[in-house]
Amino acid sequence: MTRHFDQDLRHIEERFQAMGVLVQKAIRRSNEALLALDRNVAMEVIDIIEPEVDRFQSEIDKLGLDLLALQQPLASDLRLITAIMKNTNDLERMGDKALNIAMRVISIIANPAAKPMIEISRIGNAAEAMVHDALDAFHRKDEQLAREVLKRDDEVDRYRDAAIRDLIAEMTANPQLIQQGLDLILASRNFERIADHATNIAEGVIFLLHGIDIRHHAESMGA
Amino acid sequence: MTRHFDQDLRHIEERFQAMGVLVQKAIRRSNEALLALDRNVAMEVIDIIEPEVDRFQSEIDKLGLDLLALQQPLASDLRLITAIMKNTNDLERMGDKALNIAMRVISIIANPAAKPMIEISRIGNAAEAMVHDALDAFHRKDEQLAREVLKRDDEVDRYRDAAIRDLIAEMTANPQLIQQGLDLILASRNFERIADHATNIAEGVIFLLHGIDIRHHAESMGA
Repeated sequence: MTRHFDQDLRHIEERFQAMGVLVQKAIRRSNEALLALDRNVAMEVIDIIEPEVDRFQSEIDKLGLDLLALQQPLASDLRLITAIMKNTNDLERMGDKALNIAMRVISIIANPAAKPMIEISRIGNAAEAMVHDALDAFHRKDEQLAREVLKRDDEVDRYRDAAIRDLIAEMTANPQLIQQGLDLILASRNFERIADHATNIAEGVIFLLHGIDIRHHAESMGA
Repeated sequence: MTRHFDQDLRHIEERFQAMGVLVQKAIRRSNEALLALDRNVAMEVIDIIEPEVDRFQSEIDKLGLDLLALQQPLASDLRLITAIMKNTNDLERMGDKALNIAMRVISIIANPAAKPMIEISRIGNAAEAMVHDALDAFHRKDEQLAREVLKRDDEVDRYRDAAIRDLIAEMTANPQLIQQGLDLILASRNFERIADHATNIAEGVIFLLHGIDIRHHAESMGA
């Protein structure tokens, strides 16, 4: 049973890691679609990548529930499984945000006044790097890296605030750009939310290393 | 042990129910703040209600993890606990959305051109009713009501689309209303997302009643 359990645990970690790679691709492709105003790339995120992210979530949820039910893990194993299930939820929502950005790209392309999106793309790059590092910190159980990711969230917030301020000024000066400006504001908010989810994963690392001591309770109950 | 487990299970359900009541209050108060442009009510959501929602989430997460670790529940009990933990997450995010709406209210009040928000408030009312009914369906394990909640999501989406269309037209005609229009668009999106979370809870009811058969696996493994 123990060897079986270790294998199952490794398997769920591997699937979670693979899901993370796919979600990073979703973020990167949505950012590329925005920068190049490329409809094909946006449609790839919408039709192919995001549905696959959803399938990963169902699979990992099922693996986690089975492990909880069949193996009755305690202490650090229980924390690992629940952290993976929580983080899977964050990854799935990052996939949703990437899909939202891709849909904004489709909307922007439909407007004639479209122009380069470098400022928003910078937010996307910062968010993507945070996701990468949060997942890296999770896999390597690296608390220091996790804490660095948490610090970078403020920077992304500032990028977003500056971008929204500029966009509102532009929309006010050129009301024909209102729909496009709104799409860009929503895209920048979606990137910023992706960064928020990255901080959830970074917090998960700290939970994993120092989390509530379930074992202590279990022992006192004789479980 | 069994009686203890039943008590614990009842306790987590009660706390989840209390959290649901509080989140409904957050939604209702954010909607009232928007309709009356009442700064005090908005600040109540931001400073008092939403932080309490967050504390509920931590408490229920801890209760759920302890139950999973100590009691090793199977089948329908396991489904109930995991459904509550998932739904707690949805409730917490509804609280975030209510806080976002309250922050939009503060921003709208800071602008001179503020005007009544009846159209957005209608979205809020529909979302709040969905949350109420989704929680009711969960507590009564009422599949029919859960399925009705799922159907109402499209209606809220239509309200939001209509409101955003009107707001964009108004912003285009009156560029001095751009910031306020943006605040209202974001508020309407937040209400619509609250409705989405209500559908997650409604789906949780169906998972609870027909979900993956964990017991079947457990039995075949001799657990």
